[in-house]
Amino acid sequence: VQKKITPWRLGIQEQEPELQLVPPQRAARLGKLHGALLVVASLIDKPTNLGLCRTCEIFGASALVLDSLRHVNDKNFQSLSVSAELWLPLLEPMELTEFLQVKKSEGYCIVGVEQTANSHSLQEYQFPEKTLLLLNEREGIPANLLQMLDVCVEIPQQGIIRSLNVHVSAALLIWEYTR
Amino acid sequence: VQKKITPWRLGIQEQEPELQLVPPQRAARLGKLHGALLVVASLIDKPTNLGLCRTCEIFGASALVLDSLRHVNDKNFQSLSVSAELWLPLLEPMELTEFLQVKKSEGYCIVGVEQTANSHSLQEYQFPEKTLLLLNEREGIPANLLQMLDVCVEIPQQGIIRSLNVHVSAALLIWEYTR
Repeated sequence: VQKKITPWRLGIQEQEPELQLVPPQRAARLGKLHGALLVVASLIDKPTNLGLCRTCEIFGASALVLDSLRHVNDKNFQSLSVSAELWLPLLEPMELTEFLQVKKSEGYCIVGVEQTANSHSLQEYQFPEKTLLLLNEREGIPANLLQMLDVCVEIPQQGIIRSLNVHVSAALLIWEYTR
Repeated sequence: VQKKITPWRLGIQEQEPELQLVPPQRAARLGKLHGALLVVASLIDKPTNLGLCRTCEIFGASALVLDSLRHVNDKNFQSLSVSAELWLPLLEPMELTEFLQVKKSEGYCIVGVEQTANSHSLQEYQFPEKTLLLLNEREGIPANLLQMLDVCVEIPQQGIIRSLNVHVSAALLIWEYTR
């Protein structure tokens, strides 16, 4: 169902769930919460926003999900990731809807960043341990995926410009998750 | 001592401190804290990191300080700022050290993002209302400016990669300031 790259797996005995092996050890060492934060960047088109890989690694996300693992061979991606791609598990699901469905059945809460009538403010929202963060660029989350969200979170904004850059939005949610 | 652009000033009666006129009104309308957050990006070289302009506007910073106002004419800057530069006051001080000194004498707390023995963790740090945030890219803050800092704040990180992108670091501090 999915391709994956888990570079640090070498030398570690394979077992399920393998993705949750290494980050929690690091997190525990640092006395930080670390559950199972999956960051899904499959809807992100702009390669510059995939500098997100670095932010995910730094805050201990369990994996980053991409539309394609070919990004890893891109010089620009490598430059933005400053080698984070060597430490962070990367996934390329064959089909995003199916992937979300599987994660839902595994108990993940599917969280989207959207302003809706029922959105929770990021200042008050308590992330469940098993969180899947579905990111989107300007156009928002397509309708077929929107209906799969368990929760919408919005970032309170006081300016005139309405929408944060997706890497910045993601960083704020990841930060609040680990906070 | 400095050049400035305050596009929204038109039609508003000029008075001192002019920079603090409009953002607090917006902030009050939204029931948000808004003091006087000055974001100093003069040490940032990479134009892509100046997408920070958008983030500053969205979270109601009182002004963004740049090494040069020529950035405003750059197509890439405009594209990243998505017109935030029309709403956020921008400053270009003739001399950064002098600018910091003046702001210090006006009661601003000069905050740098640095890992030092005396750094405060971002999770616990309470920003004073008058905060000047001095940002830096990879090389860190030069020694002559480092000695002018009142406080160093560090962002707790659990990954292997050590340094966040400067736009992301700045966004987390600005978010925590307004939080």
